Amino acid sequence: MQFAKGHGTQNDFVILPDLDATIELTEARVSALCDRNRGIGADGVLRVARAGVLVETGVLDVLPDGVEADHWFMDYRNADGSVAEMCGNGVRVFAHFLRASGLESGDEFVVGSRAGARPVIVHSVAGATADVTVAMGAVRELGTSTATVAGQEFTGLGIDVGNPHLACVSDDLTAAALAELDLTTAPEFDASFFEHGVNVEILTPIRDGGVDMRVYERGVGETRSCGTGTVAAAAAALRADGRAEGEVRVRVPGGEVVVTVADGSATLRGPSVLVASGSLDESWWSSLGR
Amino acid sequence: MQFAKGHGTQNDFVILPDLDATIELTEARVSALCDRNRGIGADGVLRVARAGVLVETGVLDVLPDGVEADHWFMDYRNADGSVAEMCGNGVRVFAHFLRASGLESGDEFVVGSRAGARPVIVHSVAGATADVTVAMGAVRELGTSTATVAGQEFTGLGIDVGNPHLACVSDDLTAAALAELDLTTAPEFDASFFEHGVNVEILTPIRDGGVDMRVYERGVGETRSCGTGTVAAAAAALRADGRAEGEVRVRVPGGEVVVTVADGSATLRGPSVLVASGSLDESWWSSLGR
Repeated sequence: MQFAKGHGTQNDFVILPDLDATIELTEARVSALCDRNRGIGADGVLRVARAGVLVETGVLDVLPDGVEADHWFMDYRNADGSVAEMCGNGVRVFAHFLRASGLESGDEFVVGSRAGARPVIVHSVAGATADVTVAMGAVRELGTSTATVAGQEFTGLGIDVGNPHLACVSDDLTAAALAELDLTTAPEFDASFFEHGVNVEILTPIRDGGVDMRVYERGVGETRSCGTGTVAAAAAALRADGRAEGEVRVRVPGGEVVVTVADGSATLRGPSVLVASGSLDESWWSSLGR
Repeated sequence: MQFAKGHGTQNDFVILPDLDATIELTEARVSALCDRNRGIGADGVLRVARAGVLVETGVLDVLPDGVEADHWFMDYRNADGSVAEMCGNGVRVFAHFLRASGLESGDEFVVGSRAGARPVIVHSVAGATADVTVAMGAVRELGTSTATVAGQEFTGLGIDVGNPHLACVSDDLTAAALAELDLTTAPEFDASFFEHGVNVEILTPIRDGGVDMRVYERGVGETRSCGTGTVAAAAAALRADGRAEGEVRVRVPGGEVVVTVADGSATLRGPSVLVASGSLDESWWSSLGR
């Protein structure tokens, strides 16, 4: 069983090329693989197969919206083994792997996800790094709400990017003060507004075309990067600047990406790094059981 | 550049076979490799080469005590890139790798370390797992001292196993109560007794031949296993039981090992698991600089 390891702004993944979609990705196996001491270690697993093959083998019930049978499909699993619809940083690494492995030769192609088709542009592949833009789909504003972080109340804009966010632009916040913020405990939020929980972004206003942002992901904790979170942050920062559209550089603890919002949709451009590739020990994989 | 990843009771390592000892293991490179998001991720790096080759290439100034030029040598680096003398869990994984890769065919051989020669016995290699005993050298008692963990004072036995430990056997402690203990902050200890800091073990008395133990490693925090810590814990548990020698099963969060103390020295027997092997992306490695 072949694998590769890579990351997008330090959101890291184990990539499993599985063109026949024969690997049974049980929760136990995925969580062992993602365990940072017992396994390889990653935030999630990206299985690589054609969408049509995943339907034939029963991994997918139907082709998601806009996804065609011959599109490459990112079968994404969280580190706990659960299925996730989309991962903006994951799509960049997925597209990079397709190019680096020779499975794809074009600069523009579609990556299928459970959230639908995600067109990508591979701007460059140089050494271990690629520069990739992903179409992130619709950005819907949900209205104003508040979150309390370490005793401090922040007002933010609720934004749906396939998953719910509360992006809080804090007028006086500097990058240095943001870095000092205590994000070790989950922000308090209005549970009647966000019934299924919410990801919370705290960010500076736009200065010189860029913002600094930190994110607390629901059910996970603070992470070094969150693709949909950077999109929500950029949309809220533009709105705070009196604009509905525009381009924003978003600096997160794991690096920097560029978000462009136009016509109610967003693109996310950023780096992908492929660190290593190899094979899993077959006996180890078998020992995990089902 | 080839690598493997494995662990001993969830103390995990990146193994770098480097028979000519030509890889320059700078702190920046080791810490990038051990970074769990940006690299492969591990508690440390084990470079594999013959001791004589490491002296010829200048990695070692001289052969450590008892180590011969044709012994395999475990060139151990901590995750921060610093050099460490020894790692009891690391030696098991190192010996397992030598056997699994075919570099060594015997069941008994010597692994060199900066702390001196460490004879090993490979009892079995089955699938991805090996069962290995390592001679851990002298166990010196330093006398009684105390540590405060989460407001609770524990009395323990200071023990030198190449590095300093304070192993606290708590008479009434159950495995369940031990699991509840808050070890998120560093234990307070007598800095006049342990001038260079100390690793603190909290453990149950011996019941049915075994103890349950948790460990706080100086400069690191709580870990899932610590080889020298299990030796110190076993020695203290035996002493609390009125014995200077004997065999103790030590259960740590990452698994179980068996420590045997006799004639003032100890052996550590436990599992090693090899998870995967492959190659690092050459461009990525080059991009790390020196």
